[in-house]
Order: sequence, then structure tokens, then C-alpha cells
Amino acid sequence: MEDTVTAETSPADIDRIVSAAVHAADRLAATTPVERARLLEAAADALEKASDELVTLAAKETHLPEQPRLRGEMVRTVFQLRLFGQVLTDGEFLRAAVDHADAKWPMGPRPDIRRMTVPIGPVLVFTASNFPLTLSVAGHDTAAALAAGCPVVIKAHPGHPELSERTFEILARALTEAGAPEGTVGIIYGLESGVTALRHPGIAAAAFTGSEAGGRALFDIANARPRPIPFYGELGSVNPVVVTAAAVAARGVEIATGYAGSFTLGAGQFCTKPGLLLLPAGHGLEDELRAAVAAIPAQHMLNERIAHGYRAGLERLTEHPAVAVLSDPTGSTDTPSRALSASADSAGSTDTPSQVPPAPAPDTAEFGPTLLRVNGADFLHHSESLDAECFGPVSLIVEYEGPEQLRAILRELEPGLTITLQAEESDAELVESLLPGLTALAGRLIWNGWPTGITLSWAQQHGGPYPATTTPQFTSMGTAAIDRFLRPVAWQGFPEALLPAPLRDANPWDVPQRVDGKR
Amino acid sequence: MEDTVTAETSPADIDRIVSAAVHAADRLAATTPVERARLLEAAADALEKASDELVTLAAKETHLPEQPRLRGEMVRTVFQLRLFGQVLTDGEFLRAAVDHADAKWPMGPRPDIRRMTVPIGPVLVFTASNFPLTLSVAGHDTAAALAAGCPVVIKAHPGHPELSERTFEILARALTEAGAPEGTVGIIYGLESGVTALRHPGIAAAAFTGSEAGGRALFDIANARPRPIPFYGELGSVNPVVVTAAAVAARGVEIATGYAGSFTLGAGQFCTKPGLLLLPAGHGLEDELRAAVAAIPAQHMLNERIAHGYRAGLERLTEHPAVAVLSDPTGSTDTPSRALSASADSAGSTDTPSQVPPAPAPDTAEFGPTLLRVNGADFLHHSESLDAECFGPVSLIVEYEGPEQLRAILRELEPGLTITLQAEESDAELVESLLPGLTALAGRLIWNGWPTGITLSWAQQHGGPYPATTTPQFTSMGTAAIDRFLRPVAWQGFPEALLPAPLRDANPWDVPQRVDGKR
Repeated sequence: MEDTVTAETSPADIDRIVSAAVHAADRLAATTPVERARLLEAAADALEKASDELVTLAAKETHLPEQPRLRGEMVRTVFQLRLFGQVLTDGEFLRAAVDHADAKWPMGPRPDIRRMTVPIGPVLVFTASNFPLTLSVAGHDTAAALAAGCPVVIKAHPGHPELSERTFEILARALTEAGAPEGTVGIIYGLESGVTALRHPGIAAAAFTGSEAGGRALFDIANARPRPIPFYGELGSVNPVVVTAAAVAARGVEIATGYAGSFTLGAGQFCTKPGLLLLPAGHGLEDELRAAVAAIPAQHMLNERIAHGYRAGLERLTEHPAVAVLSDPTGSTDTPSRALSASADSAGSTDTPSQVPPAPAPDTAEFGPTLLRVNGADFLHHSESLDAECFGPVSLIVEYEGPEQLRAILRELEPGLTITLQAEESDAELVESLLPGLTALAGRLIWNGWPTGITLSWAQQHGGPYPATTTPQFTSMGTAAIDRFLRPVAWQGFPEALLPAPLRDANPWDVPQRVDGKR
Repeated sequence: MEDTVTAETSPADIDRIVSAAVHAADRLAATTPVERARLLEAAADALEKASDELVTLAAKETHLPEQPRLRGEMVRTVFQLRLFGQVLTDGEFLRAAVDHADAKWPMGPRPDIRRMTVPIGPVLVFTASNFPLTLSVAGHDTAAALAAGCPVVIKAHPGHPELSERTFEILARALTEAGAPEGTVGIIYGLESGVTALRHPGIAAAAFTGSEAGGRALFDIANARPRPIPFYGELGSVNPVVVTAAAVAARGVEIATGYAGSFTLGAGQFCTKPGLLLLPAGHGLEDELRAAVAAIPAQHMLNERIAHGYRAGLERLTEHPAVAVLSDPTGSTDTPSRALSASADSAGSTDTPSQVPPAPAPDTAEFGPTLLRVNGADFLHHSESLDAECFGPVSLIVEYEGPEQLRAILRELEPGLTITLQAEESDAELVESLLPGLTALAGRLIWNGWPTGITLSWAQQHGGPYPATTTPQFTSMGTAAIDRFLRPVAWQGFPEALLPAPLRDANPWDVPQRVDGKR
């Protein structure tokens, strides 16, 4: 449906584009980090200048509001290109280590050996639908891969084809004018094109942000290649929020409001949407939660495929025998969720979960938020079916009976991108006992905040054990995301003149070096 | 055959051992790096004290000579435990980053966010047959995983079961006496036990050193889990050596001698054995090469399985229509290799390639080195069948016609662990033109040395694109090998008292911190 603007890229064209990336790889790898920082800066400048045009296109294709959402994304897109420029001038990403020959090395005489990172090679970037600027053509993965010195083949998302095409034109022209080798970036369109490119021997790594099903299928393809390649998939996350009794007592209304805002942000189409809220039983926040949710307007979803998936996921949750509705767009409250089906006709202009049509609805349909509840014992009994991501404005409150049941629930949770604690400093003892378990479950722990909204900085970690990601050792956001596209190489016994500059004793680029073990 | 000493571990016992590791994980993760350095030191001390006993056991089970080989391995095994102790006290492995809240952060207000690495969880270590001490029970992978704070489940190699059992007893007792949590190390025996443990939900990562076929099968199993885990496989490598005409002219005899010594070291049972020597056509070193190879005594192989695999691989190579024999244990020279079969009866006590028996030979058989040759054009025509690892004392000389053909050959090579250059400084222009291609092919580049003999230090890199390893972003040897068993976690908005020590502003452990982007 969305592919009418841009035709599926043919296998011959995919081969031509990947081959151009392979051809560009050596020349791009030979650029200095400072030269690559200039390429990123040129791309940032060009995109910044084109902001109005790109935001308009994005709004047309994605239903996302221009203010503050798409304008904010534009700022972020430009910012992250420049942030990777800082990573390049900083130089630590090279991990330069120089070990001089040492005849007295305890395990036996040591030759001169020096190590640094090099670009991994051409990277295939699968763009995401939910952030059409920040996580798309000129988005975070593209910026990280270019910073690493890797050519990028971009698989455009069918959710915003015109925007993809135009963003690519601007990015490619800016890079070419700034002196990047031909073939540094390429773009391909169509579902099959991504699979074809992923199997191409010229691709050295791939990055993906999207659904668990789609990401796992691609991960399997990457691993089934005659020569498997690293596949960095950011797949899905439920992002539980744990609220203590003390926090309810101290800030109940604030928590209800913050939660409602977070799980409905972007119509719940964020990988960090809080899908579970663990509240102590008897919290008494029902009215506050209903009021907070009722204040959130219905929103468009990104496209009909996502809306359709949301209807199905919502139906699965609301029809679950253990789940009750606390608040939904029809205004029904605390009804057993199965009753929803009977009340379907009472719905107004908003699309209720019970109205899942056999044929796709027009993509102008709007969705109001749905808030569900389940008691802790039932959740434990059904955690496999209830602890699952549902992309859209729905969240499930789990009412736990005391710390022991809370601990039991946490033990059953799937790993994810984030876990949030809403607690008081007086909870220190409880929190300290929970932290080891929470750390095992997520890549980012949040204290008295909300998981949506991901800053980009040196300390950001966006990743976690599967199914959050396929590679928990890495992050897909923040400066360390560059590490995904680097691999280390050692040079043993080389004369100074033949060593890469970062490994020379003279250190002409003035990069951080670890010399003979000393930082 | 080798499994008579120690019975196959039952599925129930595997579950018990992995569960104990899971149980130990939180407590081990809670130790400080300095405490873990003490655990490693205790293990090193205990193994050092037991050296005589362990070396004797190793010699009995592996046919490897005590001097210098097994004594050297013992020194290395103790050394690497202590080296990881240094990594722990250094603290950089934590990659601690502290970004304070910043209202003026260009992409929008930044919360306080801090990031460091944590242990990935219980690690399954598949031990190797060819280094019964250094890469086995208390070997490099075990040391790296313990240093990272991960419990280790060790899959013993059937090639040295008694040694494995005894090493484990010493290691486990030393760790327990030094205060390690129960379950910090466990050991399992039998081929199926490794697969069963690899599928266990409690295992968070696995490390393997061995054959490409075996490693790929385990890699596939790790990826097929409902929750895939990182699988660090070091599989195989051909380790080409490129010799320039200038190097032949300057150091022909030295090169012939060094090469013969390197490809026969440890009976060629090293993952860094130089399997290809790229010599300029007309090198005139035939006599020197034959003499150097003739000086190498026949050697036992590790076990009958490896000996059998070697015979098969050798037969495949010697029967290849493009390959001629330059020197072999029968003393035949420059005969078309197919003629070998006819001369089989002339062999003495050494086992010649033509004598591959239908039934396994006694494992006391010795193998003399075999040196083969092929011209560059034929190699290019048959590179797929000739560019393959053959574990044992055989190597193939490829005689190239000039730099253009050399470049064409290099383009056809499989990636590997190492590439070696034997060149003169006067070759600088040629070498500079080759280096980008060589860097793409390997994890370690060696100048005028030989790939066998891997020092352990901060700059070591033992890894490379597949099939060298399944994870080219990491190394399996040297201090950076710890990175395989760590994953980053970010703490957002946490009060100082609830932060892990390395992320506190007070920095009580005095670890290196990157604060607000500044190193």
C-alpha cells in the first residue's frame, strides 16, 4: 500500500548499490576521524536547512504532529550527527593501545603489538517507522555507521517513502559535496530488498529497529549466511514501572499523570512505552488514573499496518480472562474486559478495540488510550501472555500484594530496554534488594522518571538482553552506538612509518593511547 | 573413546550446575573488582603450586612434550589469571560515564544519566583440545569471564578428561577458599552436555575455541534459542603469509626456516598456523625450504580424532590436481601429488598421507611435515578448495606472478585471525597499497614475524571476520577479552547513595570516569 511512490529496488540495483558501498569502504576507512566529523557536519547543516520541507513531508506521511513532535525530531536528527562528530574528534572510540616489545614480559618475551579499531565495512540500516527522521534515512544508525567510517546502505521504510527519498537526496548530496567517496550512502526500497541486501556478501553488519517478529526473522537470516555478520536488532520491550507504597502515598496524583502521559506519548508507538505499571494493591489511585487518561486526546497511528496490529494486540489483552478495563475510549470503567465486545456499538467516532474490522480501516482512524488492570496473582499465572509488548496507547496495571509478590513478579518478567522505579529515598532498603534483579532485566534503570524520552549523550544505553536487543553488549543510541560498527585490529612488529597514525609513537593525531598498559 | 574416565553429565546434573551458576551470579556481580582480582590471584597461586602434577597429567593425555610446551602453557595459564587481575584494578573495563543533568543540552534538557558495564551472567565455556591448560578448564575464557564477574560453567574437552577434572578441583577449591560464592564455577562432561547447557535459559553467553564445523553448529544452537545469547566462537583461520621479492632476496633462508618452524609448531595444531605462504614465482628457495622442513622431527598429534581429520585434509590437498608436493615425510620431492598413493609402501615408521587407514590408527602415530606448492593462476582457479584450514603439519606455497596476481589472490582469500607480511622497508609503496585489503582480511597483521605465538597484553587482538570468529567486534585473547562478558547499563536520575560505586560523583573506587563527555 505504502509502496506506490517508490518502486521496489531490483536485485540488480541492490547489487550495484552494495558493490558501490564495498568500493567506497577502503576510501572511507582511509579518511581521518576529523575528516569524517566534517562529513557529518555537512550532512547536519544540509538537513537543518531543509527542516521545513522535511517536517512537512513527514507530517503528511506519518500523521505525526508537527509541533512539538516532528520539529523536535528534526532538532534531534541534526544534533546526533554533530554528537558523533564530537565522538570522532575525541578519539577514544579508536581504543588505541600500544604495547612496546618487552623482553621481560612475565609470560615470555613480548613483540611490539598495537591495537585500534577499524570500520567493520558496509552497513545495512533498516529504518524505523515510528521516528521518520531520527531513526530513519539520516538517523541515528546512519550517523553512527558513517562516523565509524562505514558506507551505509539504507533500507527505506514503506511508512514514509517520499520523506525517505527526499532525505536521502539531501544527505547524499551533502556528503558528496563535502568530499565523501561515491557509494558512501545508498538507498533501497521494498520489503524484499532488505532481505536481498542482508544476504549480499558485501554487507558486513546490519542495524534494525522494529518489531520482535520482523527483527528475529532478519537476525535469523543474518546468522544463516555462509559468513554470518553482526546483526544489531532493537526489537521490543515492555518497560515495566515499579511503584512503591511510599511513592503512592507521597506522589500518587503526579505518578498517575506522568504514567498516562508516558504510555500515550506518540500514541504509544515508542519502544520505551511503559507497558506495565506495578502498583501496590489498594493504591486507591483509580480515579486519578482515569482522570489522567481521560485527559489524553485520541491520536492517529502511524499507518494502517500498525493500527491493525494494535487492534489485534488490544483485543488479545482486553479479552484476557484475568484482565479488567480501568479506562477505555468508550468511557466504560472496571468492566470485565470481555463485556467490551457487547458495548461496541456504543462507541463514538473513536475506534474501540472491539471494532477491529476484517478489512483495513481508513488510516485516519484515531485511538484513545486504554488502561487495563490485573491482580498480581493472576499476572503471575498468566505472565507469558500478559508480559508482551503491544505497540499503541494501552498499558496494564499489575496490582501486587507486598514485596514478596513484587519480587516474584519481577522474576517472571522478560528482559527489556528499561525498568523504572517510582520510589522514595525512605525505600532505600527495598530498592537495594530489588536493584540486582532489575539490573539483570534491563539496559536502563530510571529513578522517578518515565522511560519515554531518550536523551543522547555519552552515558546513554539503549539496549538490553533479548528480546530488547539481539546484542546486549551494545547500545543503539548514544555515543557508544559507534562501537557496533568497529572491529579491533592489531599490528605486530610494524615499523613506525607503516603503522596507522593513531598507533604511532609520535601520535600525530593526538588520540588517547594506552601505552604499555598505562592509561 | 576418551570419555572413559569421566561419565557424561546427566541433564539433571547440568540443570543443577547451571542453576547454581545463576544463583551465584548476583553475589559474584556484587563483588568489587579488587575482590575479584583477589579471587583470580588465589586461583593463579593454587594452579602454580600444582604445576608439576598438572603438567604430568597433561603430557599423559595429550602427547604434548613437557618442555618447553606444557611448562610454557602452565606459565601462561597462571599469567593470564593475574593479567585479568590487573584489568580489574585498572577499572577502565567498567567504561564509567557520568552525564549530569543539563538543562541546556542542545537536543533538549538532559536528565542525569550514568553508564557502566555489568557482568552479562553465567557463561558457558567450551574448552579447547589443543591447549589443555591455557585454553581449557582454568584457561583464558574462564579467567576473562570470572574477571567480568560471571559464573562459569565449563564444558570439559574429552581430549584430556583427567586433567580437566583435576584442574577443576584445584580451581574450585581455590575460589571457594578465597570467598567466591558457591556455584561460581561448575564443570560438565560429554558431547551432549555442552548442547544441553547451551540451550539452558540460565546461560547468558558462551565462548568456544575449536573447529569451524563444531563452532558453527553451536553458534546456530545459541541463535535458535527462544532468547538467543552472544556466542563467541573462534573457529578457524588459514593465516596467509605474504613474502615480497625483496624479502626473498634479503632473507630467503631465514624465511624458509621461520616458516618451517611456524607451520609445524605443536604439530601444526594451532589456530594461527600459517597455512599459505605466498612466494614470488621463481623464488629459488626450494632447497632451503626442503632442508628446513626435513630438519623438523615427526610429532604426535593430540588425539586420534584430530589425527584422522588431518589425514583426510592432507589427502584432499595432496590429491588436488593443481597441487604438487615440495617435501613430505616419505622424502619424495616435487612429484605430482597423486603419485603419493603409489609410493605409500615405501613409508617408514612415520604415517604418510597415503596411509589413511579405514579404521583409526593407534594414537601413537607420528606425523612428519608436508609442504605443498601451487602456482598463482591455479590457486585463483581453485581458491575455494585450497584456501581452507587443515589442522596439522602441512602448508601450501602459492607462487604468484607479480603484484597484480598477488592482489588478485588476496582478494579471494577468506578472512582469518592473522595475515603476515615478510617484506623490506624498501617495499613501503607496495605494502601501503596492500594494507587496506589485508586489514579487511584479519584481526592481527604481523610484520616480519610469524603468526604462531600469541602474546597476551592490552593490545592483543585474537579475532576477525567470519570464519575466524563469529563476533569480529571482540577478541578472545588479551585483556580486551573481558569485554565479551560485560554489558552496559545506564542509571537515570538515581540518588548518589543508590548508584553503583563507580558511577558516584565521589568515585569511591577511584575508577576512570568520563564526566560530561570529558575524559
